[in-house]
This record gives sequence, structure tokens and C-alpha cells, in this order.
Amino acid sequence: MTVTDRYLANNQHYAASFEGPLPLPPSSKVAVVACMDARLNVYGLLGLQEGEAHVIRNAGGVITDDEIRSLAISQRLLGTEEIILIHHTDCGMLTFTDGEFLSQVEGETGVRPNWSSEAFPDLDEDVRQSVRRITGSPFVPHQDSVRGFVFDVATGRLREVD
Amino acid sequence: MTVTDRYLANNQHYAASFEGPLPLPPSSKVAVVACMDARLNVYGLLGLQEGEAHVIRNAGGVITDDEIRSLAISQRLLGTEEIILIHHTDCGMLTFTDGEFLSQVEGETGVRPNWSSEAFPDLDEDVRQSVRRITGSPFVPHQDSVRGFVFDVATGRLREVD
Repeated sequence: MTVTDRYLANNQHYAASFEGPLPLPPSSKVAVVACMDARLNVYGLLGLQEGEAHVIRNAGGVITDDEIRSLAISQRLLGTEEIILIHHTDCGMLTFTDGEFLSQVEGETGVRPNWSSEAFPDLDEDVRQSVRRITGSPFVPHQDSVRGFVFDVATGRLREVD
Repeated sequence: MTVTDRYLANNQHYAASFEGPLPLPPSSKVAVVACMDARLNVYGLLGLQEGEAHVIRNAGGVITDDEIRSLAISQRLLGTEEIILIHHTDCGMLTFTDGEFLSQVEGETGVRPNWSSEAFPDLDEDVRQSVRRITGSPFVPHQDSVRGFVFDVATGRLREVD
């Protein structure tokens, strides 16, 4: 039995008390962009309920073309207006450099990725970088509330990055 | 007061009973890729606990270079081995075409995105397409358990796509 099978069994319990469907557009008009880190329970740490906010996640919680694509669809087609960015302490992206990772992958597969790993050496600065990639994009129309935070995996608290 | 401020107040309650830190590598060695849709509470619907699984999300739950980047980091640096893909019923990505969206953005901003919207007309076929984009990538080493599902937003149930 794989872990996937165990999670499918959990889903039976979830569905037993599930009430749906809710409307498609997020009711709070918020989109969250966060790191994929297993310790970030985005619904829990923000107190989100089903149906409230889009949640976009990747390694680092960084902004690449794919997050701009998701945010453009979120705001233009589904009505969200605020953006919450979340990086976190003890992030794996702080533990290697882009060149190291790409060379490791090339060494093992023979193929060098044509993308950046988006590794970063400074947490707060990468939150600012991510905010700037959003505010610098012509494709994300609502930019009045684009705020960046660091989640502390020791305390569960969000700290805003100025 | 913005919605973001309200969520920050929720975070105070979350942190009050938070116990951390947990280890960085996901304890269940699973990575989930799911749509950003507000009705998909990934922790809830799979019964995930903090620290167990990476969660990667975007518009559609599709696989682009950025999801391959995240999965490569997840498996190569942080030890995950299984992948769970989740699309869902009533998805916004079924409601428009790529050409329509790109032309709308171009019409409003004057700039045509250099990325695809990744809109799709067939839910099951796009799950298969996403699985194939993973199994066709040289950068994702563990491919023994890459399984795709559709989440039903009316019932809360996952259905596996063969």
C-alpha cells in the first residue's frame, strides 16, 4: 500500500461530511502565493475556509511566468484583488545555489535544465523580489494590496516584509 | 481593513497553539500538484498533517517548467517519491480558450503574453496530459507512483483517471 492509497482512504472520510458545491470565484477575492513546503498549511495558518481564496504554490513561493499566468487568470477571470505572498524560515531554497543544482541535474541526467532553480540566499530580499515581479507585470491588474510575509516554522507566526 | 488584515488576525490564533518546528523533508515523501481553486482544501481532502507532503498549485493544476522545477527540487533535494495530481470538476480552465484569453489580455494591456494560458477543453485528458509531462521529463527521477485524480467539488470525492 502506497502513501497515495492511504491519502485516498482519508478522502473517503472527508467526503462523508462534505457539503458542496460552492461557487467558483473566491469569496474573499484573495490569491495566496506560498512555498510548497510541507510545514505550510496555508488553509490553517491564514484561517481560510473552502471557497475563499486561490492558493498558488511552488518551490520557494517565487514568481515566475507560471505564477503570473495563474495570478492573471485569478484576477482577470475570477475576480480576486488582493495578493498575499508567503516565504518561510528554514527554506530549502536557501541551502543551495542555482549553479550547483543545475550542474547536479546535468551531471545525473546529461541534460541541463533551461530554467533557473530560483534558489535564493536572502529570505526577505526574495520576498521583495517576488513582490516586484508582480508589481512589474502588466498582466496583473490589481496591485493595491500585494503584501509579502515570512512564515516562522518554529512559531507559526507571519512576519510582514517591508 | 483589508481581507489580508483579517487573515493576519486569524494567524495570531493559529500561532497560539502552534507546535514547531518540524523537519524540512516531507515525512510522507509525497508531492501533490493541484489546481489553485479556492474549493480545493488540499490538506483537508487528503487528510494531510503539517510536515507530510509538498503542495504545488497553479491555475488548472497543470505541468509547466515551473512545476517540473518544483518537482525536481522536491524529489532530488528533499526526498519525495510519489506524486499526486489533482484537477477538479467545474474548473475555470474549461470556460475559455487559450486564444481568447491571450487576445483579451493583449487588448487590455497592449502586450501579448509569451506564455500559454494552459486552458483545456477536457478534464480527464488534461490530467493524462499532466501525467505525461511528468513521466516525459528527465528531471523527475521517481516515476513509479505518478497518479492523476479529479476532485468533485459537489461531493468532495477524488476519482482516479486511468
